[in-house]
Amino acid sequence: MEQFKKIGIIGRKAEGAFEAFTALKTFLLSRQLEVVVGEMMSQIVPDHDLEVVPRDVIGDVCDLIVVIGGDGSLLGAARDLAHYKVPVLGVNRGRLGFLTDVLPEEIEAKVGAVLEGNYEKDKRFLVDTFVLRDDKVIGQADALNDVVVSSGKSSSMIEMNLYVDDEFVNTQRSDGLIVSTPTGSTAYSLSGGGPIMHPKLDAIVMVPMFPHTLTSRPIVVSGDSEIKIHIPEANRFEVPVVCDGQLNLTAAPGDTVLIKKKPHRLQLIHPTGHSFYASCRDKLGWGTKLGG
Amino acid sequence: MEQFKKIGIIGRKAEGAFEAFTALKTFLLSRQLEVVVGEMMSQIVPDHDLEVVPRDVIGDVCDLIVVIGGDGSLLGAARDLAHYKVPVLGVNRGRLGFLTDVLPEEIEAKVGAVLEGNYEKDKRFLVDTFVLRDDKVIGQADALNDVVVSSGKSSSMIEMNLYVDDEFVNTQRSDGLIVSTPTGSTAYSLSGGGPIMHPKLDAIVMVPMFPHTLTSRPIVVSGDSEIKIHIPEANRFEVPVVCDGQLNLTAAPGDTVLIKKKPHRLQLIHPTGHSFYASCRDKLGWGTKLGG
Amino acid sequence: MEQFKKIGIIGRKAEGAFEAFTALKTFLLSRQLEVVVGEMMSQIVPDHDLEVVPRDVIGDVCDLIVVIGGDGSLLGAARDLAHYKVPVLGVNRGRLGFLTDVLPEEIEAKVGAVLEGNYEKDKRFLVDTFVLRDDKVIGQADALNDVVVSSGKSSSMIEMNLYVDDEFVNTQRSDGLIVSTPTGSTAYSLSGGGPIMHPKLDAIVMVPMFPHTLTSRPIVVSGDSEIKIHIPEANRFEVPVVCDGQLNLTAAPGDTVLIKKKPHRLQLIHPTGHSFYASCRDKLGWGTKLGG
Amino acid sequence: MEQFKKIGIIGRKAEGAFEAFTALKTFLLSRQLEVVVGEMMSQIVPDHDLEVVPRDVIGDVCDLIVVIGGDGSLLGAARDLAHYKVPVLGVNRGRLGFLTDVLPEEIEAKVGAVLEGNYEKDKRFLVDTFVLRDDKVIGQADALNDVVVSSGKSSSMIEMNLYVDDEFVNTQRSDGLIVSTPTGSTAYSLSGGGPIMHPKLDAIVMVPMFPHTLTSRPIVVSGDSEIKIHIPEANRFEVPVVCDGQLNLTAAPGDTVLIKKKPHRLQLIHPTGHSFYASCRDKLGWGTKLGG
Repeated sequence: MEQFKKIGIIGRKAEGAFEAFTALKTFLLSRQLEVVVGEMMSQIVPDHDLEVVPRDVIGDVCDLIVVIGGDGSLLGAARDLAHYKVPVLGVNRGRLGFLTDVLPEEIEAKVGAVLEGNYEKDKRFLVDTFVLRDDKVIGQADALNDVVVSSGKSSSMIEMNLYVDDEFVNTQRSDGLIVSTPTGSTAYSLSGGGPIMHPKLDAIVMVPMFPHTLTSRPIVVSGDSEIKIHIPEANRFEVPVVCDGQLNLTAAPGDTVLIKKKPHRLQLIHPTGHSFYASCRDKLGWGTKLGG
Repeated sequence: MEQFKKIGIIGRKAEGAFEAFTALKTFLLSRQLEVVVGEMMSQIVPDHDLEVVPRDVIGDVCDLIVVIGGDGSLLGAARDLAHYKVPVLGVNRGRLGFLTDVLPEEIEAKVGAVLEGNYEKDKRFLVDTFVLRDDKVIGQADALNDVVVSSGKSSSMIEMNLYVDDEFVNTQRSDGLIVSTPTGSTAYSLSGGGPIMHPKLDAIVMVPMFPHTLTSRPIVVSGDSEIKIHIPEANRFEVPVVCDGQLNLTAAPGDTVLIKKKPHRLQLIHPTGHSFYASCRDKLGWGTKLGG
Repeated sequence: MEQFKKIGIIGRKAEGAFEAFTALKTFLLSRQLEVVVGEMMSQIVPDHDLEVVPRDVIGDVCDLIVVIGGDGSLLGAARDLAHYKVPVLGVNRGRLGFLTDVLPEEIEAKVGAVLEGNYEKDKRFLVDTFVLRDDKVIGQADALNDVVVSSGKSSSMIEMNLYVDDEFVNTQRSDGLIVSTPTGSTAYSLSGGGPIMHPKLDAIVMVPMFPHTLTSRPIVVSGDSEIKIHIPEANRFEVPVVCDGQLNLTAAPGDTVLIKKKPHRLQLIHPTGHSFYASCRDKLGWGTKLGG
Repeated sequence: MEQFKKIGIIGRKAEGAFEAFTALKTFLLSRQLEVVVGEMMSQIVPDHDLEVVPRDVIGDVCDLIVVIGGDGSLLGAARDLAHYKVPVLGVNRGRLGFLTDVLPEEIEAKVGAVLEGNYEKDKRFLVDTFVLRDDKVIGQADALNDVVVSSGKSSSMIEMNLYVDDEFVNTQRSDGLIVSTPTGSTAYSLSGGGPIMHPKLDAIVMVPMFPHTLTSRPIVVSGDSEIKIHIPEANRFEVPVVCDGQLNLTAAPGDTVLIKKKPHRLQLIHPTGHSFYASCRDKLGWGTKLGG
């Protein structure tokens, strides 16, 4: 196990973020550790007396990054930090998430445990999304959860040609297509009828959104697959390509969206004893039973 | 049975529309019937020598309206014509639809049968959609199929408060809500997981789109229900309210969308022998079997 | 509002039933009401000093029946009591159900309210299920929730011909078919992908179980529909017809199962303020939200 | 590529089997190849003049096995032959299956192509299913498609505790659980709402059948996972464990069903140009479109 000596705290403005930051900073300094803070976090915690490190450097200079926030904050951090080897730990403010599993009141116990080496590494892959025009890359973005290629408007159909590893799959007539990693399989993909995929599974799921063909179903393929979505020339509009719920790219008629696994993985840290299925039971209410 | 003496032909530009129009016109004139033509149809069939009647009058002066086109054309005609008592018959150009059940090659046989009284009336209700601000109506539109109230953008969440007959149902966190009539239940609602509803059923179904709560399910209520969707003040955007797949209305934060049955119904005509379930078997491929 | 003077208490052996019975009996007697007890309940509450009335008579001699138990107990009582006009109130032992909405600790308040006329009547229809052989009825049973006609064995296919109001719907190749009332739509039908139907809706839903045709979907028809399921001669086995989760009938190859609304309805009583949607929110966890 | 010199033909009684057998035998003999026949096939094709080889030996002595029949026949052959290295080719009588991709009229062309080395190998894993009692194996069976552990009766609930790689997943309250390989993902699992999994994916999906908890969803885990289903002592009945749709094993209350990948794989042969997605398009009707 690594020893974490220099620790970066990042996050963004949110209820409870200041309190969590203060508790964490106090705890880490009491342990004689070096603590630095990200730029965005720095702005919301005045008078912190810590070195401020830019977002694009902090992953390089620290041994451990602690993200304060929900799953959304961690998604953003993951995209920034995945190409460093730096481990990332999530501290949630209110309730646990699928990616963040330390609550503010547990900081001493759980971050303490991590510092003493009682943690597990959970490597999560991200996907690269490229927009190709005439075989040239004209746009690129990362996603830890999912890429959504759609008409952009609710209840509006788009026709797309889907290929996996250069093999033709089908012509989708739907509102769009969700391409999700295992990490994203408990997020948007799940609400669209996709399966839950264990984080250790090396797979990608493609979930059609409101497909016109009623026999269209989620398709799970190997995580090493190259997924190509070709936007026909006949399409009348530009198509948004949304990575992790944020608009990032646009594909024009004739363009191809290529999605494939990134070479680097997010090094997510969990205090020992973490269980993916326990998160499911908690967050999906698997204990709740139907009927009297 | 009524006798149809004055017949209006309407429709819009589409492949095969001219041929279907000509065959229909020839057949009707050979029967010594009076034939008029709608404005939009008139423009695509030059030298027709028929009286042209504006869209907002044609339902009043005719005994029967024949719509040439697919289900989409019939939706438009239905919204225009429902408040007249005029019966409507659909002639499709290519393949049968759920609403149109005469093919061009069947015009003599099937339109002939209708003229001889061999038809069934199939009354379909439409819904009125109102946007209410400070209890005043600021927008109104009709729908035969469905009303979609959504964030407007694919993969973008909106929070809405749903009431049925002034009883609180739930706070929906989803991409949106489809409110569908039985007629619309084989269209967009079906691709979103809604049930098929028989056209004679007096009911409305509400289908959540990508609901965050996994236990959200389609809810079927009486056709006489008043459905209110309240857009919270906190919502950051205006909300599109799409009737029958066409953008018609916009609701601002604080507004309420009210959906309820219209007093008038579409008088859809089918040649005797029509079967809703036969349409399902044909159009949904119910004969197709899984496995070898 | 009716005045309830003679009250029957029924139920069956279950944890907490004795305590609920005692609290209810004490409360009713303190109100100078006449109280009788059903046979099965009588056996589990020794020394009750009340008149014992057989199950097939108690609905006739009482003004109100209180059922102690969960939704399952109420289903049984409903089938016994629907053909009397007697109102039925459900007292649940542990947690609320969709049909039972008084908890033991609320007996004084809520049963008191009902006795003072502060209640709503919620009429629920039941269905008659007949097995027909050579056009003769050879078996009959009642259901408040649902009728399941299936191969009888999990993961075993059966072919059945489905008719609604003597119109052919399709040849189902599936594990079976669930035919559910609005009351049953929150029970087994829901776990099979059926929609939620409001209790006041006059409709029946047919939900295919593991259909071989992927385009098979739940179909909602009018509550006045006659549903016929014909078991082909070629079927190799007898087919169980399960009403409300209890095996009641068997259909042989060549037989037809006919399902239609019963003339009498269950008179379910709710203390004023009851809300079906509140039960959904509570029992289906509609407050639970996905994601961090 | 291997050269196939000794070829075994197997299959069972079915319409068209005799004709397909004769065409295949004639073609193979014309190529001067050695042809043997399985016992069951031998009984339905009189006067074939070929050596008959028992089912448990034929995989050992042949270079290639051709199965005449549908996907069901190939499932059976796969379970018998997987532990040999022998390649298997499927000839279907009527229509193509997911596993069989030569039609009788294509025998010369497609089997000819295979003999000339124009084929692809498609390795499919099977699962071992063990019933464990007091940590001892008391039953074992193979499956290429799926294992179904259920109450055994339609519409009858069972409670089971599910573990993956010795980690507790949840207590399932459902009609049962389907555990499917990628090969089985287009069969029963699909009709239960499971995703399509590409045959090359190394994964197993667990699909709950009519789950009482509405948030239960299909879960995809690594193909190397050990899945344990524990039947509680409190269960009142023995539980059928059905492999590939055939009743094979029974688990008593207190027993555990263990499912894991077998060491040997089926060597399925396809003539060059085979496409899994083309099979999906054909067999699932992905070309069929909704609406007019």
